[in-house]
Amino acid sequence: MKKGYFISFEGVDGSGKSTQIMCLKEYLEKKGFEVLLTREPGGTEIGEKIRRIILDPENMEMSAMTEAMLYAASRAQHVEEVIKPAIESGKVVICDRFVDSSIAYQGFGRGLGECVEIINRYAAGECMPDVTFLLKVKPVISGDRIRNRKLDRIEQETSEFHQAVYNGYEKLENDFPDRIIAVDAARSIDEICSDIINHVSKLIGQKKGEMTDYAF
Amino acid sequence: MKKGYFISFEGVDGSGKSTQIMCLKEYLEKKGFEVLLTREPGGTEIGEKIRRIILDPENMEMSAMTEAMLYAASRAQHVEEVIKPAIESGKVVICDRFVDSSIAYQGFGRGLGECVEIINRYAAGECMPDVTFLLKVKPVISGDRIRNRKLDRIEQETSEFHQAVYNGYEKLENDFPDRIIAVDAARSIDEICSDIINHVSKLIGQKKGEMTDYAF
Repeated sequence: MKKGYFISFEGVDGSGKSTQIMCLKEYLEKKGFEVLLTREPGGTEIGEKIRRIILDPENMEMSAMTEAMLYAASRAQHVEEVIKPAIESGKVVICDRFVDSSIAYQGFGRGLGECVEIINRYAAGECMPDVTFLLKVKPVISGDRIRNRKLDRIEQETSEFHQAVYNGYEKLENDFPDRIIAVDAARSIDEICSDIINHVSKLIGQKKGEMTDYAF
Repeated sequence: MKKGYFISFEGVDGSGKSTQIMCLKEYLEKKGFEVLLTREPGGTEIGEKIRRIILDPENMEMSAMTEAMLYAASRAQHVEEVIKPAIESGKVVICDRFVDSSIAYQGFGRGLGECVEIINRYAAGECMPDVTFLLKVKPVISGDRIRNRKLDRIEQETSEFHQAVYNGYEKLENDFPDRIIAVDAARSIDEICSDIINHVSKLIGQKKGEMTDYAF
């Protein structure tokens, strides 16, 4: 039986994932959970090398399929080396982006379609999140939020691309209502955070019997 | 209609691919063909970056699935950026390793099975070789031939691994008899080369009407 718990965060760039992840991590640690924070692409030494190739603004000639395969490569390593062992040892794994990002960005944004889902079924194996928080914010707002950042190759994409990604996320939200929880991310940090904590309390509460030593 | 021609070379390390490729290239160029020589993994700037990650002996913890996805990523880029445009412009493309290598090494050698074929169907798209020369030499002989090289991460594998790869190639030879031509590579360089040239003359001869200006 699975001992730990796996939570992923999704959303367009600028939707506030990093902030919310830190907020949830702090809460869970106060409750006595051991939390592992990780991110995609990356999360392992090999994955970080792959990440550098994916995001390097120099690699503008990268084909959409290459990009999808590199994300899947990084993911396969991440699952084997980090996520699975952490869940098996009873930790709560919080992952910044996972399979849904590939489907939204490469499947919808780049228009590669359903092959992205198939490739990622192999990359993730059986290791899918117990719950995924989708931070929803209209592309026009998220675009404003990242305007002052130094943008990577994906962030530099057109607004049409970001709109297609947003639509992809909405499709996923409809297709996987049991796993994906949409959160209105246009609200204040505190409101969003308390929403997420409420959900997690219920979910991990239900699993309390299964999870070994934690008092929740 | 396809203007050029696509030839791939396959075989275990030490089967003599590089020598035979040079020999065929020289012959074709003498006949007036424009030849593009390329290799996998690699063949593009992005592909060479991926190649370095795959073959670096430091990356010993790489999962089999990650390896398979990285090869597919490199291949997708190679097809889009190099192979397709060259064939469309009427060149003869000779590629050192292609899809069959992934199936033999990751599918059979690493035991990943048929998912490797599926992933690579996406990576290569419709762009499959017109003919593939499989240089067959028993692993014990090829192992001797590479003994004095500085070995990369894949070449350093066990003899069981190399035997599984050999078996994988035999399976492919049986599954795709119209595309794959097995060549006994335990013979002298000249004998092998003249065998290959004979086959290519016939094949490209048949295509003569299709290929534009060449006299064969």
